[in-house]
Amino acid sequence: MSVKEKLQANYENMVEIRRHLHMYPELSFKEVNTPKLIAEKLRSFGIEVKENVGGNGVVGRLEGAYDGPTIAFRADFDALPIQDEKEVPYKSKVDGVSHACGHDIHTAALLGLAKSLADNRDALHGNIVFIHQFAEEVVPGGAKAMVEAGCLEGVDYVYGSHVSSWSELGTVLFCEGYAMAAADFFELTIQGKGGHGASPHETIDPIVAAAQFVFGVQPIVSRNTDPIESAVITIGKIESGTVGNVIPEKAHLTGTVRTFNPAIRDMVEQKLNNLCKAIEIQYGAKLEFNYTRGYDAVYNHPAETAMLREAVSINLPDLQLLNAPPRMGAEDFTYYLQEKPGTFFFTGGGHKDIEAVYPHHHPKFDVDEQSMLNIADVFVEALKLHGVVK
Amino acid sequence: MSVKEKLQANYENMVEIRRHLHMYPELSFKEVNTPKLIAEKLRSFGIEVKENVGGNGVVGRLEGAYDGPTIAFRADFDALPIQDEKEVPYKSKVDGVSHACGHDIHTAALLGLAKSLADNRDALHGNIVFIHQFAEEVVPGGAKAMVEAGCLEGVDYVYGSHVSSWSELGTVLFCEGYAMAAADFFELTIQGKGGHGASPHETIDPIVAAAQFVFGVQPIVSRNTDPIESAVITIGKIESGTVGNVIPEKAHLTGTVRTFNPAIRDMVEQKLNNLCKAIEIQYGAKLEFNYTRGYDAVYNHPAETAMLREAVSINLPDLQLLNAPPRMGAEDFTYYLQEKPGTFFFTGGGHKDIEAVYPHHHPKFDVDEQSMLNIADVFVEALKLHGVVK
Amino acid sequence: MSVKEKLQANYENMVEIRRHLHMYPELSFKEVNTPKLIAEKLRSFGIEVKENVGGNGVVGRLEGAYDGPTIAFRADFDALPIQDEKEVPYKSKVDGVSHACGHDIHTAALLGLAKSLADNRDALHGNIVFIHQFAEEVVPGGAKAMVEAGCLEGVDYVYGSHVSSWSELGTVLFCEGYAMAAADFFELTIQGKGGHGASPHETIDPIVAAAQFVFGVQPIVSRNTDPIESAVITIGKIESGTVGNVIPEKAHLTGTVRTFNPAIRDMVEQKLNNLCKAIEIQYGAKLEFNYTRGYDAVYNHPAETAMLREAVSINLPDLQLLNAPPRMGAEDFTYYLQEKPGTFFFTGGGHKDIEAVYPHHHPKFDVDEQSMLNIADVFVEALKLHGVVK
Amino acid sequence: MSVKEKLQANYENMVEIRRHLHMYPELSFKEVNTPKLIAEKLRSFGIEVKENVGGNGVVGRLEGAYDGPTIAFRADFDALPIQDEKEVPYKSKVDGVSHACGHDIHTAALLGLAKSLADNRDALHGNIVFIHQFAEEVVPGGAKAMVEAGCLEGVDYVYGSHVSSWSELGTVLFCEGYAMAAADFFELTIQGKGGHGASPHETIDPIVAAAQFVFGVQPIVSRNTDPIESAVITIGKIESGTVGNVIPEKAHLTGTVRTFNPAIRDMVEQKLNNLCKAIEIQYGAKLEFNYTRGYDAVYNHPAETAMLREAVSINLPDLQLLNAPPRMGAEDFTYYLQEKPGTFFFTGGGHKDIEAVYPHHHPKFDVDEQSMLNIADVFVEALKLHGVVK
Repeated sequence: MSVKEKLQANYENMVEIRRHLHMYPELSFKEVNTPKLIAEKLRSFGIEVKENVGGNGVVGRLEGAYDGPTIAFRADFDALPIQDEKEVPYKSKVDGVSHACGHDIHTAALLGLAKSLADNRDALHGNIVFIHQFAEEVVPGGAKAMVEAGCLEGVDYVYGSHVSSWSELGTVLFCEGYAMAAADFFELTIQGKGGHGASPHETIDPIVAAAQFVFGVQPIVSRNTDPIESAVITIGKIESGTVGNVIPEKAHLTGTVRTFNPAIRDMVEQKLNNLCKAIEIQYGAKLEFNYTRGYDAVYNHPAETAMLREAVSINLPDLQLLNAPPRMGAEDFTYYLQEKPGTFFFTGGGHKDIEAVYPHHHPKFDVDEQSMLNIADVFVEALKLHGVVK
Repeated sequence: MSVKEKLQANYENMVEIRRHLHMYPELSFKEVNTPKLIAEKLRSFGIEVKENVGGNGVVGRLEGAYDGPTIAFRADFDALPIQDEKEVPYKSKVDGVSHACGHDIHTAALLGLAKSLADNRDALHGNIVFIHQFAEEVVPGGAKAMVEAGCLEGVDYVYGSHVSSWSELGTVLFCEGYAMAAADFFELTIQGKGGHGASPHETIDPIVAAAQFVFGVQPIVSRNTDPIESAVITIGKIESGTVGNVIPEKAHLTGTVRTFNPAIRDMVEQKLNNLCKAIEIQYGAKLEFNYTRGYDAVYNHPAETAMLREAVSINLPDLQLLNAPPRMGAEDFTYYLQEKPGTFFFTGGGHKDIEAVYPHHHPKFDVDEQSMLNIADVFVEALKLHGVVK
Repeated sequence: MSVKEKLQANYENMVEIRRHLHMYPELSFKEVNTPKLIAEKLRSFGIEVKENVGGNGVVGRLEGAYDGPTIAFRADFDALPIQDEKEVPYKSKVDGVSHACGHDIHTAALLGLAKSLADNRDALHGNIVFIHQFAEEVVPGGAKAMVEAGCLEGVDYVYGSHVSSWSELGTVLFCEGYAMAAADFFELTIQGKGGHGASPHETIDPIVAAAQFVFGVQPIVSRNTDPIESAVITIGKIESGTVGNVIPEKAHLTGTVRTFNPAIRDMVEQKLNNLCKAIEIQYGAKLEFNYTRGYDAVYNHPAETAMLREAVSINLPDLQLLNAPPRMGAEDFTYYLQEKPGTFFFTGGGHKDIEAVYPHHHPKFDVDEQSMLNIADVFVEALKLHGVVK
Repeated sequence: MSVKEKLQANYENMVEIRRHLHMYPELSFKEVNTPKLIAEKLRSFGIEVKENVGGNGVVGRLEGAYDGPTIAFRADFDALPIQDEKEVPYKSKVDGVSHACGHDIHTAALLGLAKSLADNRDALHGNIVFIHQFAEEVVPGGAKAMVEAGCLEGVDYVYGSHVSSWSELGTVLFCEGYAMAAADFFELTIQGKGGHGASPHETIDPIVAAAQFVFGVQPIVSRNTDPIESAVITIGKIESGTVGNVIPEKAHLTGTVRTFNPAIRDMVEQKLNNLCKAIEIQYGAKLEFNYTRGYDAVYNHPAETAMLREAVSINLPDLQLLNAPPRMGAEDFTYYLQEKPGTFFFTGGGHKDIEAVYPHHHPKFDVDEQSMLNIADVFVEALKLHGVVK
């Protein structure tokens, strides 16, 4: 049986693993049983395993019978602090925690692929690295730590995929270049000087200064950002004062910055710092501004993306190829692509059997499990592309 | 004994009344025992009394032996929802309620005056009305209701005073014309459209609209208000959103407006309404703006103010006359002065015996009880001015 | 004949002088014939004269027969660069120059008073100083220089008046305390970085920075200025760019600041400087901000103002007394009042014989010459107040 | 000789035509001799010609010996009101007019191609339409009129190119999808109410309202535009007032809007209109806002762009292929692409022989004439792509 045939044969097993994971989800950085299960499975396939890579990560390595390049695939396995509100047999058994983003799908798909490949080791011209990553959902994430722990050593190319409830089963979406945004966060405390609402001259009004901050960020996007590039600065929360006739001491604001191009990211951070300094001088307030960088933007290597897309187009005619516009969401897959060429694509999992399709992170989120086969099939195309699978 | 001498003789009694009131304070609109006590005292002096005037108000009327004008004096008697934190024998016995603004002083001073005048009825050329007012602290206040209930019928002039911890005992402060501000309040709810912080174009950002409101009010003061007039627009509270990366549905703002000139007050209210309409059009948000008028500005009649001031200057040389600049705080004494000529002055009560002088509405607020005599003495000067007391 | 009777008798002569001056006006700092004429007239009355005081100023000194205080009166005598468009026999004969502010009235009135007093020298208990001032219209003005040159040496009190077309003949307007504003000016050049309108990110947009300046000045008035004080910041001119699709290099703004209280004036200047620094930091532009102080605010000494007002009220019943609200215009009379007690009042000159009353500095400005007598009469009341004239 | 060989052989002739056009440039909509010359040349090649197409346009049609598709090429031929400051033998002989944008290159290249193709008519499997367009530089441009006049009737595909001084000779730049922006213009007059700078309350300050407009446009870009789309709103000119102490009557602003996506273009125009209405309501000013649409955005059909790019890559290895990022400049080539599939690419003409490379519309702008051969060569590839040239 070919790898692809084996995958098909192995599907029920993948579903079983996925549902087990779905019932016993574990939060980011708190994964214990999930990596243990993964390691056991990989070992049971005859794959060499390293545990606790960079934290809770698991890395399997399968050496082919013949020389050839080393290709890594990554699946993340952490869950979310969201109550499962679906009514399905495999509903989460952990209160307040669920796989509402599909990482169980990723994990089961990669384990299924691992088994199929292990069964075909004799025909492999090269090696495969299975990166089972912890903690994708929470900054600083697991990817960086796993890379630093050496999970990419000897790897030539790296691929990953995310299942998507927002695209129908049967679709695969590629995006060349910047595909997902850098997602940064900031907190601002404006320390003014409180006082009676009728005596503004004796105070430093933090609400007026806060309004200036809100307005001051707009030209950073509208005037300082190259119009063909992207930047978002959102202030999601503002809070100051308790009653209408007292000028408060402080105002608090928190927000997020999304960018693709690192130069624009740097510019935005710099300009926000300047804005804070300017408001200090203009109003005499003290501003404490903390800017926290989240994941870098995901940059899909154009050549590998184009080649894999073309391979899918030719060899997997049942799949519908779509262009994915860049998305403002974040992913720590970026840290693999900063080291090795490769791409990160989306695989449609829009569930035909349920009326409403729920967005990721929704309490009723679910996807069609057939998407696991599609992810694995595209991964196999990547292996063919590099000659590992003939 | 002259009225003034009687006052002096009666001082211990005034102190006793004041301390009783201080120990048993009652909140605005919930005054029960205080007006009962006042009515009893007035009746015990032989003064004709009406109770439940406009609510919890008490009005005494003393007719002099001779014809002459009718002069009204007003003392308010409600207390505040503030815990008394002083350590004095007459500390409030009511948990969470105290006379932290000195209305007990006003009441006791006026009762003392009433007794002195009643004792001198045979020498009076005219009549005196004692307006004991409930609920000054809370809009809509008691003054308007008492006026509507007829407490000023037949009255020719009306006078009132407020004891002040911020001015030393022995001072009296007059202000011609506008003396205390109209204090209005507003609440604004901006209904935007929430969404993901990375997709501002799919939302109507209520925080940007709120910032526009904050900035939009500034030119109403700085450009639309005659520079020699006064206006304050303070936004004391702003609240929107819960986390940095979600654009919220709504923003809430509350604030206060202070003005003297009614034309400017009308202008400010109109411009704030226009600003809200403008923001609706500019941002596509829905704005619910509620503007609530508090007390009108207190306008001291210039002639009566000047005359009383001059009388004090000549006849009460021990008192130090000061100019009171207009104050942005509010008082419902305005409703008496809108009907009858008169003035409202401040009487210093800065307490010599305590190290720190606490501001009005402070948990440790107190004043020197001698200020009661000063209030009453100035009231007597008003009676002399109009020929009621010779 | 009393001084007042002499004034009346001398009226035709005053008119003659006024019309002569009106026909031969001289610009500020360029006064040659006007001071020469004044000096000749004063000398012809037997008054001791100093010329070129502080520049083009003339100071006369009249010593009374008896000892007493020394009272100074000031009249300014410069004209304006405005074309006279009136059709009157005494129309200006100097092209583009006219007495469109009434300084000719001031001068003729003071000369008339000087003659009357000189004729009564034997009855004077004290001395009179006649300050004929050059260059009131143009900063830095003549007052400061004349004071520095000693024109107030030995003087006890100083008085001045301005005729007003905006108030009817027969009125006199007093204002205690701050009566006229400090009038300052500023110029701002914002040096950005120009470029193509489609590439804002390669530029520093001076128009956005200019808008920030315009908005940034508003809270200085609306939040940093005590609501019962006054401040105006007006940007009267803004200029940047040439076409819609090119981002310009620079923006220019000019404006004026009006205040009474020196502390607020200092605050405004400081805050404007801070605002410019803030904009530099926020936008990376270079701001060149020049703030030029004009005359200080005129502060009328309350006691002298009140006393003179009362004297007029009693002794000149034909004159109608009005309260002058503080005016945002400027006057260098302030520099006399900073040295000596006194007051500066307005004298109505609204012209009954012409249909429209034109404002000061209008090409058709004129006033009723009878106002000269009223000015002189009030000056005489000041002399009586201090016992110089009995 | 192949078409390509003929082009090479014909090069000197192309240079001659180009230099003639360069010496006798004609302004947009005022082209007389240029179209006449083009028509003569085309006819001399044996090509059927229509003149005065949609105005001053010239359209040639060459029918091949064999059936096949009809391919159109477009070259624009108008010049600019810019003084030629180059020192070259072919310097413009028309004062104040020059081919400072390279349209002479386009025209000569297309004429050269026309001659080569006409000489090879017997081998052509299809037809070629030569669109020589007037007035590209000035809205409403010639393209729309020529399309309306039928120049694309029977045409299957349309191609065009622009020479670029900013890219070196030998480069060709393709851009899939939106390649050049819609460039719109607006003018705004804010009618306030003027007055004295010290009395802002008696005025409607147009400068504050103008600042509000400048700030109000920022969120249209920063919040209302999808972050992965593009919009620019530039205010290039602002003008109001004459002196610092007078509040002016009016303010004037002019600006440009650049967008690709028509939905965003509509949104921006709508929001600008809303902003103006909002400012009217907020400030009581009257705003006259005129928004003029320039050319639509150029949208290169992805399939034709990709295919031509691949053909160049394979068949013209001497040319260096570059990705052209979308450009915010405007082109009326859009009106051809709105009717027929095709693409518009840039051809490098960076001049090796001159030290500085001057930008388009610069008085010293010039390009390397070899770029004409490159344009024509790529056009030939388009013909091969569609089977017209074998």
